Amino acid sequence: RIDPARLWDSLMEMAKIGPGVAGGNNRQTLTDADSEGRHLFKKWCDAAGMTMGVDTMGNMFATRAGEDPDAAPVYMGSHLDTQPTGGKYDGVLGVLGALECVRTMNDLGIRTKHPIVVVNWTNEEGTRFAPAMLASGVFAGKHTQDFAYDREDHDGKKFGDELKRIGWVGDEPVGDRKIHALFELHIEQGPILEAEGKDIGVVTHGQGLRWIECTVTGKESHTGSTPMHMRKNAGRGLALVTELVHEIAMKNQPNAVGAIGHIDVYPNSRNIIPGRVVFTVDMRTHILPKLNAMVDELMARAPKLCADIGVGFEARIVGQFDPPAFDEGCVAAVRNAAERLGYSHMDIVSGAGHDACWINDVAPTAMIMCPCVDGLSHNEAEEITPEWAAAGTDVLLHAVLETAEV
Amino acid sequence: RIDPARLWDSLMEMAKIGPGVAGGNNRQTLTDADSEGRHLFKKWCDAAGMTMGVDTMGNMFATRAGEDPDAAPVYMGSHLDTQPTGGKYDGVLGVLGALECVRTMNDLGIRTKHPIVVVNWTNEEGTRFAPAMLASGVFAGKHTQDFAYDREDHDGKKFGDELKRIGWVGDEPVGDRKIHALFELHIEQGPILEAEGKDIGVVTHGQGLRWIECTVTGKESHTGSTPMHMRKNAGRGLALVTELVHEIAMKNQPNAVGAIGHIDVYPNSRNIIPGRVVFTVDMRTHILPKLNAMVDELMARAPKLCADIGVGFEARIVGQFDPPAFDEGCVAAVRNAAERLGYSHMDIVSGAGHDACWINDVAPTAMIMCPCVDGLSHNEAEEITPEWAAAGTDVLLHAVLETAEV
Ligand SMILES: NC(=O)NCCC(=O)O
Ligand SMILES: NC(=O)NCCC(=O)O
Repeated sequence: RIDPARLWDSLMEMAKIGPGVAGGNNRQTLTDADSEGRHLFKKWCDAAGMTMGVDTMGNMFATRAGEDPDAAPVYMGSHLDTQPTGGKYDGVLGVLGALECVRTMNDLGIRTKHPIVVVNWTNEEGTRFAPAMLASGVFAGKHTQDFAYDREDHDGKKFGDELKRIGWVGDEPVGDRKIHALFELHIEQGPILEAEGKDIGVVTHGQGLRWIECTVTGKESHTGSTPMHMRKNAGRGLALVTELVHEIAMKNQPNAVGAIGHIDVYPNSRNIIPGRVVFTVDMRTHILPKLNAMVDELMARAPKLCADIGVGFEARIVGQFDPPAFDEGCVAAVRNAAERLGYSHMDIVSGAGHDACWINDVAPTAMIMCPCVDGLSHNEAEEITPEWAAAGTDVLLHAVLETAEV
Repeated sequence: RIDPARLWDSLMEMAKIGPGVAGGNNRQTLTDADSEGRHLFKKWCDAAGMTMGVDTMGNMFATRAGEDPDAAPVYMGSHLDTQPTGGKYDGVLGVLGALECVRTMNDLGIRTKHPIVVVNWTNEEGTRFAPAMLASGVFAGKHTQDFAYDREDHDGKKFGDELKRIGWVGDEPVGDRKIHALFELHIEQGPILEAEGKDIGVVTHGQGLRWIECTVTGKESHTGSTPMHMRKNAGRGLALVTELVHEIAMKNQPNAVGAIGHIDVYPNSRNIIPGRVVFTVDMRTHILPKLNAMVDELMARAPKLCADIGVGFEARIVGQFDPPAFDEGCVAAVRNAAERLGYSHMDIVSGAGHDACWINDVAPTAMIMCPCVDGLSHNEAEEITPEWAAAGTDVLLHAVLETAEV
């Protein structure tokens, strides 16, 4: 079993870097705080006797040697970047839980045939640079590195330039690694495990996602002196599409969601009718045909709604992944570990996207989930208990040990 | 008659300061560009033999002496600040047209009994610091100077600090001036004069305004893993209120308008359900009971709409003025001048708020409007013809000369 207190201490230590405004974290990808978090993680990995490799996407791989140097490593990890108003556990638990597993192996003198790698993927959250899971996506061949380097944040800064600026461009070519298997521990970010009173979610599938960036174009004009019939109010386009997205999600219940989280209004002045509104629709479900039908309905109806009020509508996909089904062998290793350790568990579908979803396409992969209070995540008030963290990390340790062959 | 070419040259010269991105201007109040524009205006006033006074709100008063030093001056002017994506004429025409009137008086050796003052009011637009017409409001006793100094922009910078930073805090106490009469020339910012083929709008009344800053409070949570029934989506509150404002304006036709120009979404991340949206409703009509009824309907229905979807609604007034009726004598002076000069004219209601609306409460005041292309304003593409500008300025000159007693 892992050391729950040591794990918790490390979580709290990391949370000091990039503090939020309400008890959580703002350690967005490729900021100075992200770099500081990486340095702390590297220091801990060095202290645990691991060797750090960094690839050209800034992904960090800390290796604990195996008995058979030719055997492909078993990976475990997640991401250290956070939302602008994020929690202390989303991603971080998966990285520091993996580190805790290695520390425990060291304490107990456990040797494995396969090397073990603890990984921190760059830009999982996708807030600053869309899409999410960008660097694991490049690793898995979903995007080119050039595409990733060209992604721009809200201020027009490029991913490639910012990675360089914070000093974390490694020399290892991205994706050039053998993977025997990969396990990602993550908080559920939803309410099911807590409601069902289960310690462990054995993740069998995930939701697919589409991020559709929409631009509604009206005409900037004076809010006072422009008669109602001459207005082209892009804000009304946003309003109609907001409700359309909700309607589409509701009629595809159960197991479908949709919302708009990102909205930019131009020129955003109290006495100018919005001339342009840019916003991103987030639609998800774990059933691929349903996901495609939801997007099709949006694409069919939104332009008409907008045309009826005299504004233009354009849309493009800025992030997408199909619903993943995880590797049966790895999933069984997770389920067996929970069973063996006596933790209550249930099979579950991941509501969020994770780096494991991309890696699943190139290597046997599975995920372990632990509950979070009220299902709350992407909120500074995100909370878990030390017991939940410990249970998830115990299961991670045992699934990895089984796979890496003690 | 004034010199149309000289007027136009000055307009184009001023437009070089704080250029926009699409041919217009971004010379927002209390920016470096605003300061540069003030220096150019002062240079021109000095060259025209006027004496510049600046008050503690940064309002600029350039005086041309009268024959009777004890007579209260006749004022003319408007504002040099612009919207973030503003035009080259909104406000600027009123200031530089007034300057052109003085230059013409100088050329023709015209003396007046009353001194003449050309005025540039600070922060008319209200985009950076709400409310609009802030400094003329303090001058007219509508706000205290402390209130004005405390206004904050989007970055938390205060009006008082920014006025100091750009170096335009004058030593004259604000509002401490005698005014015989005030005339403001302004572009219509609406489509009526152009549609009716009139050179001059004789402004008899103005619309009243209410700016209602609304805060919708939901709960930040994950767009993927939060089930639909557990969401508190503040973005939906914005959507419902957007359509409510439109509905209220439409059912009060004719002569009523309503829209939302300013919207801030928190935390504005693609995969976070908005936890809070702050936006400003702009409602106007020139009939006071109707204006109050529109606001009452918003305040009654918006909280219910929001409660039905599980989000909170709060609102406060951040800007307001009642519909002004201009001074009959000054209005007659404008109408007579247009008649005498042979310009086609019509009585008109101002759709926008103007500094003249506040001054109207403390001194006899009137406004002159000239057409603008397609009624477009608060848009970089705002356009007028040199002929329209010249006609408006001619009428300004003659109304002022009649009032200031040649
Ligand atoms: N786990 C997580 O929040 N990932 C970010 C990508 C997503 O929005 O699902
Ligand atoms: N004229 C003008 O655009 N003034 C700004 C105040 C308003 O929104 O009416």
